[in-house]
Amino acid sequence: MMTVSIICAGKTREAFIKSGIEEYQKRLSPYLNLKIEEAVEERVPENASPLLIEDYRRREGMRLLAKVVKDSDLIVLDPQGKMWSSEDLAGYLHRCALSGKPRVSFLIGGVYGHSPQVREHAKEVISFSRMTFNHQIIRLMLLEQLYRASRINRNEPYHR
Amino acid sequence: MMTVSIICAGKTREAFIKSGIEEYQKRLSPYLNLKIEEAVEERVPENASPLLIEDYRRREGMRLLAKVVKDSDLIVLDPQGKMWSSEDLAGYLHRCALSGKPRVSFLIGGVYGHSPQVREHAKEVISFSRMTFNHQIIRLMLLEQLYRASRINRNEPYHR
Repeated sequence: MMTVSIICAGKTREAFIKSGIEEYQKRLSPYLNLKIEEAVEERVPENASPLLIEDYRRREGMRLLAKVVKDSDLIVLDPQGKMWSSEDLAGYLHRCALSGKPRVSFLIGGVYGHSPQVREHAKEVISFSRMTFNHQIIRLMLLEQLYRASRINRNEPYHR
Repeated sequence: MMTVSIICAGKTREAFIKSGIEEYQKRLSPYLNLKIEEAVEERVPENASPLLIEDYRRREGMRLLAKVVKDSDLIVLDPQGKMWSSEDLAGYLHRCALSGKPRVSFLIGGVYGHSPQVREHAKEVISFSRMTFNHQIIRLMLLEQLYRASRINRNEPYHR
């Protein structure tokens, strides 16, 4: 079974997001070996200087990269990335499952965006939307797409 | 205060989506007069013919259009629509709030897509993503964007 990790900056705070994640973990269990990893978030003072924010971003990037599963593809989510359709994601997961190393890490960054180091390590930088979504809801959106992709790849109907 | 209706095909079924909607209804109450309207969904038999589906889509479109608030702009959500950024949505809502008729209806269709009649009545057909999201999660995504837009328009910080 394929191993998929979702690496996110900061804890899941909202109760409804937590229950949504649990729901999708259940639904995905027949398809994927799913792990959700949260990297500790630092507090950034209001009105922090650009230099301070750059530094914060770099440190956050290091903490996130430290959680990437060894020998896995790293897919970074970013509003400015390549727009994939649900079928593109399904196709990618299908090819990855057939490859010698069926391991993928999806990385969801924090509010200040990704560090250059994170981008350098990415196999793909993909975008879910030109809109900026909060980093809590993005977790649900990614899980829903993983579930949809899994159903597409098994030719199972999916209407919910 | 601006009136925003969200018109959707079918009930909100999932418990976590329900609590998410309630959460955003609370957050949005200082900014918008928000209404969520659900049109009854018909059951479509598995393996329905294209003609039957077309007919279903037409009837669903009629039921959805019947719920559009009088004299409101109709904005239809569709994966193939125009890609708006969060700032585009904020700008649109800002202009609408200043116009003589600060009323908008957002329409989220069902699993078979929109009827030609729905598209004809739309002022804009916009897309949140090239990916197809289920019609439950799209409700949360739209609410989050309405909240984000409201904060942008009041120059309030938004990090969650």
